[in-house]
Amino acid sequence: MAPSKKGILERLDAGEVVIGDGGFVFALEKRGYVKAGPWTPEAAAEHPEAVRQLHREFLRAGANVMQTFTFYASDDKLENRGNKLTFTGAQINEAACDLAREVANEGDALVAGGVCQTPSYLSCKSETEVKAILKKQLDVFTKKNVDFLIAEYFEHVEEAVWAVEVLKETGKPVAASMCIGPEGDMHGVSPAECAVRLVKAGAQIVGVNCHFDPMTCVKAVKMMKEGVEKAGLKAHYMVQPLAYHTPDCNCQGFIDLPEFPFGLEPRILSRWDMHKYAREAFNAGIHFIGGCCGFEPYHIRAVAEELAVERGVLPAASEKHGNWGAGLEMHTKPWVRARARRDYWENLKPASGRPLCPSMSAPDSWGVTKGHKDLVQQKEATSQDQLKQLFDRSKSH
Amino acid sequence: MAPSKKGILERLDAGEVVIGDGGFVFALEKRGYVKAGPWTPEAAAEHPEAVRQLHREFLRAGANVMQTFTFYASDDKLENRGNKLTFTGAQINEAACDLAREVANEGDALVAGGVCQTPSYLSCKSETEVKAILKKQLDVFTKKNVDFLIAEYFEHVEEAVWAVEVLKETGKPVAASMCIGPEGDMHGVSPAECAVRLVKAGAQIVGVNCHFDPMTCVKAVKMMKEGVEKAGLKAHYMVQPLAYHTPDCNCQGFIDLPEFPFGLEPRILSRWDMHKYAREAFNAGIHFIGGCCGFEPYHIRAVAEELAVERGVLPAASEKHGNWGAGLEMHTKPWVRARARRDYWENLKPASGRPLCPSMSAPDSWGVTKGHKDLVQQKEATSQDQLKQLFDRSKSH
Amino acid sequence: MAPSKKGILERLDAGEVVIGDGGFVFALEKRGYVKAGPWTPEAAAEHPEAVRQLHREFLRAGANVMQTFTFYASDDKLENRGNKLTFTGAQINEAACDLAREVANEGDALVAGGVCQTPSYLSCKSETEVKAILKKQLDVFTKKNVDFLIAEYFEHVEEAVWAVEVLKETGKPVAASMCIGPEGDMHGVSPAECAVRLVKAGAQIVGVNCHFDPMTCVKAVKMMKEGVEKAGLKAHYMVQPLAYHTPDCNCQGFIDLPEFPFGLEPRILSRWDMHKYAREAFNAGIHFIGGCCGFEPYHIRAVAEELAVERGVLPAASEKHGNWGAGLEMHTKPWVRARARRDYWENLKPASGRPLCPSMSAPDSWGVTKGHKDLVQQKEATSQDQLKQLFDRSKSH
Amino acid sequence: MAPSKKGILERLDAGEVVIGDGGFVFALEKRGYVKAGPWTPEAAAEHPEAVRQLHREFLRAGANVMQTFTFYASDDKLENRGNKLTFTGAQINEAACDLAREVANEGDALVAGGVCQTPSYLSCKSETEVKAILKKQLDVFTKKNVDFLIAEYFEHVEEAVWAVEVLKETGKPVAASMCIGPEGDMHGVSPAECAVRLVKAGAQIVGVNCHFDPMTCVKAVKMMKEGVEKAGLKAHYMVQPLAYHTPDCNCQGFIDLPEFPFGLEPRILSRWDMHKYAREAFNAGIHFIGGCCGFEPYHIRAVAEELAVERGVLPAASEKHGNWGAGLEMHTKPWVRARARRDYWENLKPASGRPLCPSMSAPDSWGVTKGHKDLVQQKEATSQDQLKQLFDRSKSH
Repeated sequence: MAPSKKGILERLDAGEVVIGDGGFVFALEKRGYVKAGPWTPEAAAEHPEAVRQLHREFLRAGANVMQTFTFYASDDKLENRGNKLTFTGAQINEAACDLAREVANEGDALVAGGVCQTPSYLSCKSETEVKAILKKQLDVFTKKNVDFLIAEYFEHVEEAVWAVEVLKETGKPVAASMCIGPEGDMHGVSPAECAVRLVKAGAQIVGVNCHFDPMTCVKAVKMMKEGVEKAGLKAHYMVQPLAYHTPDCNCQGFIDLPEFPFGLEPRILSRWDMHKYAREAFNAGIHFIGGCCGFEPYHIRAVAEELAVERGVLPAASEKHGNWGAGLEMHTKPWVRARARRDYWENLKPASGRPLCPSMSAPDSWGVTKGHKDLVQQKEATSQDQLKQLFDRSKSH
Repeated sequence: MAPSKKGILERLDAGEVVIGDGGFVFALEKRGYVKAGPWTPEAAAEHPEAVRQLHREFLRAGANVMQTFTFYASDDKLENRGNKLTFTGAQINEAACDLAREVANEGDALVAGGVCQTPSYLSCKSETEVKAILKKQLDVFTKKNVDFLIAEYFEHVEEAVWAVEVLKETGKPVAASMCIGPEGDMHGVSPAECAVRLVKAGAQIVGVNCHFDPMTCVKAVKMMKEGVEKAGLKAHYMVQPLAYHTPDCNCQGFIDLPEFPFGLEPRILSRWDMHKYAREAFNAGIHFIGGCCGFEPYHIRAVAEELAVERGVLPAASEKHGNWGAGLEMHTKPWVRARARRDYWENLKPASGRPLCPSMSAPDSWGVTKGHKDLVQQKEATSQDQLKQLFDRSKSH
Repeated sequence: MAPSKKGILERLDAGEVVIGDGGFVFALEKRGYVKAGPWTPEAAAEHPEAVRQLHREFLRAGANVMQTFTFYASDDKLENRGNKLTFTGAQINEAACDLAREVANEGDALVAGGVCQTPSYLSCKSETEVKAILKKQLDVFTKKNVDFLIAEYFEHVEEAVWAVEVLKETGKPVAASMCIGPEGDMHGVSPAECAVRLVKAGAQIVGVNCHFDPMTCVKAVKMMKEGVEKAGLKAHYMVQPLAYHTPDCNCQGFIDLPEFPFGLEPRILSRWDMHKYAREAFNAGIHFIGGCCGFEPYHIRAVAEELAVERGVLPAASEKHGNWGAGLEMHTKPWVRARARRDYWENLKPASGRPLCPSMSAPDSWGVTKGHKDLVQQKEATSQDQLKQLFDRSKSH
Repeated sequence: MAPSKKGILERLDAGEVVIGDGGFVFALEKRGYVKAGPWTPEAAAEHPEAVRQLHREFLRAGANVMQTFTFYASDDKLENRGNKLTFTGAQINEAACDLAREVANEGDALVAGGVCQTPSYLSCKSETEVKAILKKQLDVFTKKNVDFLIAEYFEHVEEAVWAVEVLKETGKPVAASMCIGPEGDMHGVSPAECAVRLVKAGAQIVGVNCHFDPMTCVKAVKMMKEGVEKAGLKAHYMVQPLAYHTPDCNCQGFIDLPEFPFGLEPRILSRWDMHKYAREAFNAGIHFIGGCCGFEPYHIRAVAEELAVERGVLPAASEKHGNWGAGLEMHTKPWVRARARRDYWENLKPASGRPLCPSMSAPDSWGVTKGHKDLVQQKEATSQDQLKQLFDRSKSH
């Protein structure tokens, strides 16, 4: 079946909307197959039926891309993860490719081999060493003949460029996606500049994923697009954001929020939030639209339903979903039936049921703020003593 | 394997904690296999791999009970659901039994055949007719030899008693669970009185499920227990609440909240909320502890982890979970590593990331409040006119 | 002027609505004349112009009652307050009477001499001693010939009854108001029973003040009314609540909220909340309607405007206020002009501008909850150790 | 007394902190003397005792500046206000000067004559006409010999410059304060550029007032300071913000928030918020620190207490206030006594008691957003129809 499918670049060149899949790491953590902390994808080999089922659900929800479940599957990361694994890195990467291909063949989807940032880079290994680590995953993707490649979740543009350079060697189409927001990468390189460097390195698709909520990610990709166009270059654009509302996070994204990773529930986007996201991304000229951490199959379905007219097709899973809540028309209670309409859900401001909780958090970057806070408190303590003397004096008058 | 297993009553009589499973209808709606509105379980026949996988995840999370996915699978409900189905009611019920048995056999779990309230009762059919409808599902359960039976999600104690009477005919153990809170059933019969009637009808296990958040459900079951004990009767107790915070709902439960069913995300309980729930239920003397709508596998795992000492075992899925967030000890950022401790998560007040949304909603019972509101507004309008005259007069002075 | 005015009982007997004044202690604390903590009213003697001005503002807002600013002006309290005062208790009480009379004479208002609970009672002094303390204030009220008397802010019905008995000796009308909510006094005596005892002791008007928000106070007075009527007695009813939203406080009222007394700002009622309160109180058959802590002149004006038709008069201060925001009709911006209408303000859900703050607090009753919490934590710690062993074991498998 | 006092520039040149007063218009609206909508200050002539009392409270709270209550007292505004006034513009302005001087003489305060933006400018009158209108108020200020002049609450730098030019003719010190935030004036002129123009026009003090919360105003004044210094000019800086939290407002400030002006209560700053503000302003090199709408006397006192060490003096009203809540040490309940400490109040996140309300609002600029919204909805409606067809088709399969 694969040969007859249009490739990723053919689709995007033709102006088609390509729907990505959702977040495997977080979804499988909740299903019991991924450990939060290391976040490694050994489940591809250990529990293939669970990974296959999640692929199927995203396919059914409308995804055109099955990303191999190979996030953090570089050898240096797998060795780093605390507990010993039963399977080798190669076995995990191969199993992931097989699962993605099996399900992609069940529908109109392509297989994308994915690599991400490495512990080697963070521990200051050389370009050669980092590229060698990435090359090992790439050898599997070549052997398994994936349809295209994605370098994603890079915080530093330098490492992202190295990754693109390695991936380009295969001759397959290459997408590059950084986990940055409008403030740019961890060295302050702007989204525009990041995108220009990635396109110059050979990426045909650029964008961002993870770390920020959908509207913030769309904003960052818009800045990328402006930068690329201003530089006289050409590219396609992708966005795969969090399914969490994160208006309160700083440049490092949701990692720094106090709720990460075990208290994020109240931030989960509804399907209606996804409609707004899909429309906003499409209007911004971004045509590869998917999700990352927090995206469940119904979130991807909402993206596909919002863009059903543009794509000319509803996803298979819409057989179990009404247009803007239309399934409620069958409810027995009249006031629930009254919710079976678009403007009801579009305007709903859902309550958290948590009256003791705030609506936003202060990001928790101990390294930065703790020292500053100590300093401030120390200075204030001095003047507090003097003030107390003034008050005590005023009391006795 | 099944014959060697201890039955439900043996376990409860021995003082064991029995962990129930979570909410199939809501979980499968998000995965794309159940339609919100009709909420019927035809997926058991249509997409068995999806249902099997969810059973497995709950088993792996620690569940000792695999409920057959037969909620709303009575013939009168299936005929009522808008679209025509490819499978008959008997086929759906049989498929559900097979899937539950297949997975139960993979671990230490029992199969429970489940029935729930019927459209026939709500449209005032006779006791004979209602019982005949329930009997059809029961015939499948008998044929498939389930381990015990649950009559759950009844809003009216009268129908629940009829259900218990039908289920008792099989000779299998019978549990009865109503979807009521501390205010009692839809005719105002108290939880205590409901429980007494159900025990007298022959139920060996009584409790509540769905409609309210965990703490509210535990409170209602406590009232049941007090009633049963005061009446000099004996029973075991079960609780399978929502995984949504619902401090703001009225006696009809979360159905009346404006967020039902497509905007409930901000209300989802965290795993830490589940620890509190499990402890509270156990302390109240409730030993069959599970979940209903909103419960994902990681919620059940949290219940099993909280009661691991009492049960003497951790669930299989804990291989992918650290004790109170211990997996974070491996994180690269020191302030995230600092979250790998119990008191951090226990005291966290998670933000919603939704500053434009409230923390509670007013339940939306159109039938009741709308008329009242009109009346009030009409009365006030009259005096408003008179008031306006007073103001206008005062302006010109 | 005073002799020609109708007395408080004549007005209430005739079915008139009597508007009370607002909260002097809190208003003058914000203006700089009362110290939070002791809360004593020495400003009546020290800064009479400030107290007189506040009386005038309440008169202008529609108040028919000028309460003497003698809250906590019993000698035992004044001696207790930390700093020494320049004026004696008698001087403070006399100055307060003079100010109330001066302003009452400027309009249609009566002077009410007020006493409240005493430190003597709380330190277990005898009935004789407590009555002697109250008698000293009463002597001033008799000398200054106030129009009627109010015993208010009593947490214990026993002391309130004693106060009524003392006040009755003057022959003047007596009102009795407790600072309790629907759960009753600090010994758990119900509002109904409290009211019955107060009426039997001779109070012609009974009700509640302070400690709870308006709707809660109205609810408590309704319970009083039902109790009095059930006992075959007759009385008039009064309510003077907080101007703070306190859905989260326990039986001890807003004192226990963590925000008391210096962080209550986000809870302040708007004028529109006051309209609802006034209507609710009036509909409940309460005809003496005023305010306590947090009530500023514009809050009382809102009460008077809501009941203007019933009273046949708008307050003087309405010359500076439009009907339901009508003054905005003159605004330059069209979208602000669009707010000059009742339904806009009636339906507004005002934001706090505080996204890091919750909407409710847990009451902070250290004595009660701290010990319980320690106990729970201790018990849980034990099983936590066992659990950790289970996890550690599972890790190494 | 006045001749012996140091002038405003002498104080600022000497590095002293000058405390401004609070917001007369809003405070007197709540007291019943100003009408929201027109917001004119006729109370200076109509109800002088009320205005005098408010001046006294701010003096007592620590204010060194008594601003004449002449906001919106230009003749064109007074004629515009709906109802006819009993007093002429000159009478109102003169009465306001007399009251400010009377109270200033009671302490260490200066009188500042104030003018603000005019309807004439907004209706496109010429520079000559606008200046003539301002000149009429100025004649009163000259006659009454105020100590210095403030041109405040200007949304357009052009009109502010004109005002400075007129005020300079008197030879008195001139302060210029715009009601803008970091985004600049209504034509988008940056705070830096506004400040440079005002200093070049002769203003010795520049800053911002009203429209935004304290931290936002301090940020805008910092930008002014940077601009002035970059231009090689010299000036003193002032800030007089709202006492409302407004994180959610756009460039037009709190006017556009849906809560303006009758639902702002939940946004009111606590005294502890004021401590942070005063410290932040002082640290930014702003030495004239006061308040605008929403500031009550206790807010100004908090500013004066925070800067008591720097100023070497506590305000008179601190006789009724303990250091960081120390007055609570005398409370009877131990858990309230435990609140008598700085870190308690500094870290408190006060709840709103309004669980049905959000924490932020969307600014309500009808003119701008309504049209846009209609457009979007229209476009979406079209594709919605097509989508519905797709769904209907899928239903019947």
